[in-house]
Amino acid sequence: MKVAIQGELGSFSHTAARQLAPKMQVLPCTVSRDVFAALKKGKAQAAAIPIENSLAGSVVEHLDLMLEHDFWIEAEMRLRIEHNLIAAPGVSFGQIKRVLSHPVALDQCRKFFQEHRHIRPEPFYDTAGSVKHVLENNLRDTAAIAAHRAAQQYGGKILRSGLEDNKQNFTRFFLIRKGRRVAPRANKTSIAFAVKNISGALFKALSVFALREISLSKIESRPVPGRPWEYVFYADLLCGQEPRAEKALGHLAEISEFVKVLGIYPAAK
Amino acid sequence: MKVAIQGELGSFSHTAARQLAPKMQVLPCTVSRDVFAALKKGKAQAAAIPIENSLAGSVVEHLDLMLEHDFWIEAEMRLRIEHNLIAAPGVSFGQIKRVLSHPVALDQCRKFFQEHRHIRPEPFYDTAGSVKHVLENNLRDTAAIAAHRAAQQYGGKILRSGLEDNKQNFTRFFLIRKGRRVAPRANKTSIAFAVKNISGALFKALSVFALREISLSKIESRPVPGRPWEYVFYADLLCGQEPRAEKALGHLAEISEFVKVLGIYPAAK
Repeated sequence: MKVAIQGELGSFSHTAARQLAPKMQVLPCTVSRDVFAALKKGKAQAAAIPIENSLAGSVVEHLDLMLEHDFWIEAEMRLRIEHNLIAAPGVSFGQIKRVLSHPVALDQCRKFFQEHRHIRPEPFYDTAGSVKHVLENNLRDTAAIAAHRAAQQYGGKILRSGLEDNKQNFTRFFLIRKGRRVAPRANKTSIAFAVKNISGALFKALSVFALREISLSKIESRPVPGRPWEYVFYADLLCGQEPRAEKALGHLAEISEFVKVLGIYPAAK
Repeated sequence: MKVAIQGELGSFSHTAARQLAPKMQVLPCTVSRDVFAALKKGKAQAAAIPIENSLAGSVVEHLDLMLEHDFWIEAEMRLRIEHNLIAAPGVSFGQIKRVLSHPVALDQCRKFFQEHRHIRPEPFYDTAGSVKHVLENNLRDTAAIAAHRAAQQYGGKILRSGLEDNKQNFTRFFLIRKGRRVAPRANKTSIAFAVKNISGALFKALSVFALREISLSKIESRPVPGRPWEYVFYADLLCGQEPRAEKALGHLAEISEFVKVLGIYPAAK
């Protein structure tokens, strides 16, 4: 049994996958589209995907892919993101002139780069992948920013810890699978819907929840490809599989172009 | 008089700046934060910033910077985005092994890379900057993806046009300045607001517009830095400087943590 992740071993997704599916082997994929393809073709039985960061916002590519595919959100979790400066063994901080990492990680360590102006940030496709690259090529003037696990995975040395500007840095992950399975304690529902292009449409859509005292913990809009300035909404509802939720979703379907339930799962603590 | 843009000369922002402020000289800035700093310090009198792409979604960094600063949206425009493969003169398509561009541009040309699997996409900080880099270094195995204007600007040759997967590819730009100025034909209002953390809060917030028959053309949520899982909403209202709009915004202020009007301007055709 395998759980697919985007990125290399040692990434934050790797840590999330270990926690969400502890008994499964981790299958690293280069890009997000490959993660979804692995699940579709049965190369993996589940996938652990980041969906939202408390500073950077939604991982919009994953929202788009969830809408495109018919997978089911079975669980969520929140991971505290800590950024470490990782180099090859024997390299000292004074030697570092260049730092590789994923653009989002670099952006979350702005203060570090402001305080060390001679060190140049350089975007790389993946956090853990940047550690792998530095270690495999035994670079002596280049470090990487990634999770603690990435240093272990590739034998790197942590030169500095806690590089992130803001300690309130969390990423929310989903465990997704083929086929609908709802845990008994499920109390959260993720949906996607598109409103009709009429005045007050979103207000009417939200009324189906407000009238039934169902709270939203999140709502986000995304453009519809090929239909400029039209939007799909992604919402998280604080309700499980219960009659008022079914009625609210039925009511929403009446007044929307479409409604898709992406998953019903227990809320992360 | 100068208009600041993010990116090099020859970028899509350059084209937008020429149209939004035809009499001003263009001031290129490396990163978005520098664009806002140039405007704040008076090095530029205006800035032209992309705010939303019809495929990729919002330029969230610019939303965040608009909230942080006190600038005013004076105008908007929509630009059709066309991606071209640009190389040094004398280089033929068969020589190309690597293509540089901004990650969003690369992502919008997926079909091209699927059809030419031996050509490797590589992220670069800027579309026009990638053309400048290819030309300045006279690279013979590397091309760049950018606007037509970038080829002119740096003396590049267009090898292929219309690389974008989806022709319905538009970017919306704002012209921003210090100080509130409302054009007579202004019929669109952009605001940011945060709702109180209570059940049905967004529904109540939207009711202030629905009850006055003011339509929203867009609503988007962004996380509040340092306060995980709380959100700021950005909305565009189809109303100008008129009594019902003032009443609606007053009503919204009553029930929100804060409301900020980002600009009142004529809607783009």
